[in-house]
Amino acid sequence: MHFTSERRLDGGVVEREFTLGEIPGILWTPASASASAPVPLILLGHPTLGLRKMYPRLVGRARHAAADGIATATIELPGCGERPRWEAAEQARADLRRAKQADEPISDELIDALILPLVDRAVPEWQAALDALLELPEIGGPVGYSGGVISIGIRLALVEPRITAAGLFAGSFVPRAMFEEARRVTIPLHVLLQWDDEGNDRQAALDLFDAFGSKEKSLHANMGGHTGVPQFAGEDAAGFFTRHLK
Amino acid sequence: MHFTSERRLDGGVVEREFTLGEIPGILWTPASASASAPVPLILLGHPTLGLRKMYPRLVGRARHAAADGIATATIELPGCGERPRWEAAEQARADLRRAKQADEPISDELIDALILPLVDRAVPEWQAALDALLELPEIGGPVGYSGGVISIGIRLALVEPRITAAGLFAGSFVPRAMFEEARRVTIPLHVLLQWDDEGNDRQAALDLFDAFGSKEKSLHANMGGHTGVPQFAGEDAAGFFTRHLK
Repeated sequence: MHFTSERRLDGGVVEREFTLGEIPGILWTPASASASAPVPLILLGHPTLGLRKMYPRLVGRARHAAADGIATATIELPGCGERPRWEAAEQARADLRRAKQADEPISDELIDALILPLVDRAVPEWQAALDALLELPEIGGPVGYSGGVISIGIRLALVEPRITAAGLFAGSFVPRAMFEEARRVTIPLHVLLQWDDEGNDRQAALDLFDAFGSKEKSLHANMGGHTGVPQFAGEDAAGFFTRHLK
Repeated sequence: MHFTSERRLDGGVVEREFTLGEIPGILWTPASASASAPVPLILLGHPTLGLRKMYPRLVGRARHAAADGIATATIELPGCGERPRWEAAEQARADLRRAKQADEPISDELIDALILPLVDRAVPEWQAALDALLELPEIGGPVGYSGGVISIGIRLALVEPRITAAGLFAGSFVPRAMFEEARRVTIPLHVLLQWDDEGNDRQAALDLFDAFGSKEKSLHANMGGHTGVPQFAGEDAAGFFTRHLK
């Protein structure tokens, strides 16, 4: 992990860009974090639009967490932003655009092609990032995962024991195979659902929430479309992480 | 409204019992509330088990609200506690017990008989209590309604313009006719659902949430049965009222 830039944002947040091999990422820490006062960490997931495009929303979440005394970090997803594309993923995205333009239903096969290879590639990268982040003296743990492509969150919640709480956004396609993984997740979960999300199947999201094996799981459904998550929903999610990480 | 007792609870909460005609009730105010610093009010709904039985949970909610600078009040429901029974309600309750013991489905007719006359009697009483409470110089408003028999909350949210926000518990039977009233509710709503509530139809609760006409409505679903609402769900509901009443 190589830091490539460092700047101080107002509100006492230190923002550092880094690379992890070929993968760009960003780490935000409360200025107060130090080796003698290490802080918990939330991995900030995001959709496949690229870090640069997602930056404004990510830094907002990072500032909020820093105010609660929690560090946050994110990395670019495979095939997104400046990272090399791979053919099968490009093909699946093209198929998705075509199906949407033609107003056709999105088939299970297409959802599998879009999501499963992404999960398989991304999850080990987030785990490698976690290895590197936890070596920093100012990052102590515990660790949470928040948002982004929900299947990445499900897989991480299942396979990465250092993640002890997850906030998931039921806002992207979920392959049927992920329901089986969801049943085996046991960490506390905070699941956001936008009730009128135009790109999301509400019943599938409710079924997925039902499937999770966690004894503590909360579903917070709010009005509005995919990007309309109200500010107070962010406050409640922050409360969830404070309860579990602090 | 006649106050019949007054005592100070620790934490700076003043508890006063009152009667409103034949109806017993309780008012809790933060000790700081005064004519020159009047406070908002939450009407505390409760199930049909009687105020005495519900007191421990009610006083817990009252203490929490008082710490947030909000007064709370509740009154006994018609036909409950020490109040006179009426025959049709007793008959409906007996029919419900019989159906439950025989493991029979609860018919729409029985739900109507249980709930609709209760709503018709209770709602004007809560409105009369509100009239009296708002005459107290230390109670200013705005006013919220929280919990209890959800159909009473729906009717109050619809017909009582002084109630500007409602926290509802999707935990009791809802007559089909109430869905029509729900569609016409427009105030901000915070709806709690216990995902595994043994006495409650989950799909009906989701349909009811969908039916509400409010632009701001949130559904918070948590694990566990009817009485297992987790403490953090109470915190989130308190945040909803603070946002809308303070």
